[in-house]
Amino acid sequence: MRDGRLEREPLTESAGEMIIEGRNAVIEAFRAGKPIDKLFILDGAQDGPIQTIRREAKKHGTMTRFVTRERLDQLSETGKHQGVIAYAAAYEYAEVEDILAAARAKNEPPFIILLDNIEDPHNLGAIIRTANLAGAHGVIIPKNRAAGLTATVARTSAGALNYTPVARVTNLGKTMEELKKQGLWFVCADMDGTTMYQLDLTGPVGLVIGSEGDGVGRLVREKCDLAASIPMKGDIDSLNASVAAGVLAYEIVRQRSL
Amino acid sequence: MRDGRLEREPLTESAGEMIIEGRNAVIEAFRAGKPIDKLFILDGAQDGPIQTIRREAKKHGTMTRFVTRERLDQLSETGKHQGVIAYAAAYEYAEVEDILAAARAKNEPPFIILLDNIEDPHNLGAIIRTANLAGAHGVIIPKNRAAGLTATVARTSAGALNYTPVARVTNLGKTMEELKKQGLWFVCADMDGTTMYQLDLTGPVGLVIGSEGDGVGRLVREKCDLAASIPMKGDIDSLNASVAAGVLAYEIVRQRSL
Repeated sequence: MRDGRLEREPLTESAGEMIIEGRNAVIEAFRAGKPIDKLFILDGAQDGPIQTIRREAKKHGTMTRFVTRERLDQLSETGKHQGVIAYAAAYEYAEVEDILAAARAKNEPPFIILLDNIEDPHNLGAIIRTANLAGAHGVIIPKNRAAGLTATVARTSAGALNYTPVARVTNLGKTMEELKKQGLWFVCADMDGTTMYQLDLTGPVGLVIGSEGDGVGRLVREKCDLAASIPMKGDIDSLNASVAAGVLAYEIVRQRSL
Repeated sequence: MRDGRLEREPLTESAGEMIIEGRNAVIEAFRAGKPIDKLFILDGAQDGPIQTIRREAKKHGTMTRFVTRERLDQLSETGKHQGVIAYAAAYEYAEVEDILAAARAKNEPPFIILLDNIEDPHNLGAIIRTANLAGAHGVIIPKNRAAGLTATVARTSAGALNYTPVARVTNLGKTMEELKKQGLWFVCADMDGTTMYQLDLTGPVGLVIGSEGDGVGRLVREKCDLAASIPMKGDIDSLNASVAAGVLAYEIVRQRSL
């Protein structure tokens, strides 16, 4: 307890991003259910253990990159990578159901922030921090091409990662479909959308934020019920992704408080 | 012109932070009116040219640090620092009057963002970016202990530094007093303040944002007419400074648009 608030147990004891090197170590990590964010495999490696690792990676939806020996040597901390290096998340991922349960426990309509390919760990951390303070019940990120819960994310979240569940899903669009069946509706951040002040953003809502360069992807955007824009009065193109997420999240907070 | 918007000339040709080494070079830079953000002088150096540099630094309100020879050697790019290294801003600073003139030119009540000791250049850049898009007419930062307009700030501002004037003042409180005479009033970001939705944030306004650790300093806070808080529904202490600035700035945008 702190200031009368209930502290959740940290999602894991370890706060550092873990580098796992060598075939057996990586296979064991997968089988132990460790959340592997990224996998680097020597380009052209084809032997049995590597095949096993590739199968596990596929099963878990882990992003895999095939790289040169020089690159692996650079990444290696032990010098004994045997052609494979994995990065394990610093924090455990939650399930989408945990997020809905958090909303139910507070007797609030769910408020979830979904991130479509936010690749910058500082932005991801800042958004988890914002999600916590704006009273969102959790954050959902896709498995591919997105930043995972690294030590940098944990640090930038300023502790929010200890409280706010982050779920990682294979297909963001499919997860949105499933959440719609549970009564949620979705609003995408979209520069061409309706000014956020003119939309009704109350009720059980998922706020979808895209990457700074590309915005929300087409397939995900098609699943959105509304497109909300932040009024842009200036000369440049767009807000920082974590600032945009904050401004939109707090418009939801404002409308919920009316 | 881009999308029908008038582009201002970049404030300076150079986009890189400049390191200036050696006594004559630093003296010349001061005399040429180059904006020097930081000055490193060999601890104990007392000769004529160093005295001249210290006088210039005092005159221009430049932050000066007295450091060891080892530190200077580390900082030096040429190996010929002669006991003094200066960092020049990548961009020229504007005057407070330029900001008021920008508001007059648009026939809008002034909207200025004042930063009390934001030390992180990424936050400073993101806030200048937000200021541009929220339609603020400029940003005011204090000379001491704050990040200057370095190349990192320019990059993080995503081009906003080319459009949004940033003025640097010796005494933020004094500048606020002068702006009050011109009809501005000031609202401080303050966790113990009144919820921002309950305040009238319209009219000619200065929004004061403090550092993440310490918030707005006491002397500056005492000059504020109102203290505004962002509702905090979570478990951790505070939003990222640039997110907080964005949320507050857009509450001003919302109220101005009503």
